[in-house]
Amino acid sequence: MDQGSGKVNNEGGKLTHYEGTEKLLELWFEPITLENGETKRQKMCDLRVIPRDEIAEMLVKVKCEIVSFSERDEQHAYILSESSLFISKRRLILKTCGTTTVLASLDSLLALAKKYCNCKVVDIFYSRKNFMRPDLQHSLYKSFEDEVKYLDSIFDRGAAYVLGRMNGDCWYLYTLDDTSIEQPDQTLEMLMTDLDDEVMAHFQNTTGRKSEDVTKESGIADLVPDCKIDGFVFEPCGYSMNGLLKDDGYVTIHVTPEKEFSYVSFETNASMEDYSSLVDRILSTFRPGKFVMTLFTNEQAACRSSRDTLKETLLDRYTRHDRQYSEFKNYDLTFGHYVRDKKR
Amino acid sequence: MDQGSGKVNNEGGKLTHYEGTEKLLELWFEPITLENGETKRQKMCDLRVIPRDEIAEMLVKVKCEIVSFSERDEQHAYILSESSLFISKRRLILKTCGTTTVLASLDSLLALAKKYCNCKVVDIFYSRKNFMRPDLQHSLYKSFEDEVKYLDSIFDRGAAYVLGRMNGDCWYLYTLDDTSIEQPDQTLEMLMTDLDDEVMAHFQNTTGRKSEDVTKESGIADLVPDCKIDGFVFEPCGYSMNGLLKDDGYVTIHVTPEKEFSYVSFETNASMEDYSSLVDRILSTFRPGKFVMTLFTNEQAACRSSRDTLKETLLDRYTRHDRQYSEFKNYDLTFGHYVRDKKR
Repeated sequence: MDQGSGKVNNEGGKLTHYEGTEKLLELWFEPITLENGETKRQKMCDLRVIPRDEIAEMLVKVKCEIVSFSERDEQHAYILSESSLFISKRRLILKTCGTTTVLASLDSLLALAKKYCNCKVVDIFYSRKNFMRPDLQHSLYKSFEDEVKYLDSIFDRGAAYVLGRMNGDCWYLYTLDDTSIEQPDQTLEMLMTDLDDEVMAHFQNTTGRKSEDVTKESGIADLVPDCKIDGFVFEPCGYSMNGLLKDDGYVTIHVTPEKEFSYVSFETNASMEDYSSLVDRILSTFRPGKFVMTLFTNEQAACRSSRDTLKETLLDRYTRHDRQYSEFKNYDLTFGHYVRDKKR
Repeated sequence: MDQGSGKVNNEGGKLTHYEGTEKLLELWFEPITLENGETKRQKMCDLRVIPRDEIAEMLVKVKCEIVSFSERDEQHAYILSESSLFISKRRLILKTCGTTTVLASLDSLLALAKKYCNCKVVDIFYSRKNFMRPDLQHSLYKSFEDEVKYLDSIFDRGAAYVLGRMNGDCWYLYTLDDTSIEQPDQTLEMLMTDLDDEVMAHFQNTTGRKSEDVTKESGIADLVPDCKIDGFVFEPCGYSMNGLLKDDGYVTIHVTPEKEFSYVSFETNASMEDYSSLVDRILSTFRPGKFVMTLFTNEQAACRSSRDTLKETLLDRYTRHDRQYSEFKNYDLTFGHYVRDKKR
């Protein structure tokens, strides 16, 4: 990606590092209830009423900006100079890469949700994979312990976890051990590194190319059916897409194609009874050398337990380095870390 | 416990903190094989041949000393001024509390195993619960990240994990992702805090009391059948026991009874098909306010998967705050964190 924060150039001006690894913030809101049980302006509890200029101002703090917008049914989707923002009635997802400062949005987001929608936060999921170059991040994001201290200063009952290896590839999570969200919810994420050169070629030399062509030629258009895709090519390379499904479903993909620090993220909340064939399509499309996979599901999710729906039958080209299954108050989570088998 | 390191007194001389939480090091060895496939002095690969004065010297580095010795079948067991040491043919377990420096034993242990038994390490498990007062520990042990860096400087392919909440009660593990131990192996640990006053009274005012009486009156004698118990009372309070089962089975219990920092650890490698009734007896005997429970099992273990044998049916007085199930190369691990339900 050529815009925004996080570029590191050597003396000749060549980009020597870009951190594709995103910081992902997902917030769930509910109406503030008055003491007599009445909900003040309850009909206003729709986060989409927050004015666009307020959102743009909040994004300045995060060090990124809006480059594209799309909508469908109950959702607004923004492609950002670094990744994506999704806003539906009660859920806001802000995912940003590079050296953006996503947690700097929190004060603004909580204030905007109160001011325009009379809403308060009921659940939060802040997560990220370990960075390739933590030393290049702004100070708060150099270590997850500091991010946790900051979040603990804002939220009560926050719980922080590390899945995978502290001294290797891992995935950090901060969430609230609190009220449950009473609707089906599930999130699959695949965070892929060391990607195949041929695949990455689709996302190189993008200057002057149409995003629709890249979406189609790369196979992204065929990953999830009935998806309204808003794709965006960065110059001279890089690609982002937001896909909107019916109701509040979404898919989002971000590609950093440079060989030295290639990274692709795939995320969806699409409701499925079994994610195995989707996982297989993603692996065939991007051919990562390594990846971390997480699946969050709550009790109402169509697939029920996250553990039973990721059977690994289609992962036979990969060696599993870690698999962990966590039971939280309202969600369960399956985490896996896989490395491509060099013999095959 | 009144001996050894880690006592913190206020001005009046009253003990204001003692860290019962142990650092647990378990090492597995195998004979060093020569290049032609011949095992040099293979019959000597029995760690019990290491002379006692060498062991005592190694323990000086850890800042603790031997206070009692027992043996049975294939095992030597030592009660230390801070916790325990078990030595069988190929396995060594060193568990020490207070402000001992258990990792300072590593260089000596590896050298002794090579010198006297021609053995090298094939697996390591270093684990501990979060300390109550990490600020009182020696520098290396104030943060697990530093312990990991130290272990990574000695071992290749070490994998470090945090189970539970980084910002709450958690349990740290460092292990090798390497060769498998080809014999059944399983370890149950329960690390208990906020213990019941009536139960802790058994381990208070121990000056002049017989350890046998404390073992019997506290109910410890009835926890595991066919167990050769070596108990030890510390003055003015505190209790440790090593229990030897047939072959290389063991049980070890350590009690820090002071109300302000009460702590009890239970650990066994007893082979069982189901640990539920043992867990229930431990909870009834010690009545902790909170506890962390871990069960490690390898493929050969009688109970198979650690997850399926901890059914929680007998934990109905407790609320589960976390449960995580991890699949490592040779072992699986179930971790749980439970808090006593105040309503009952």
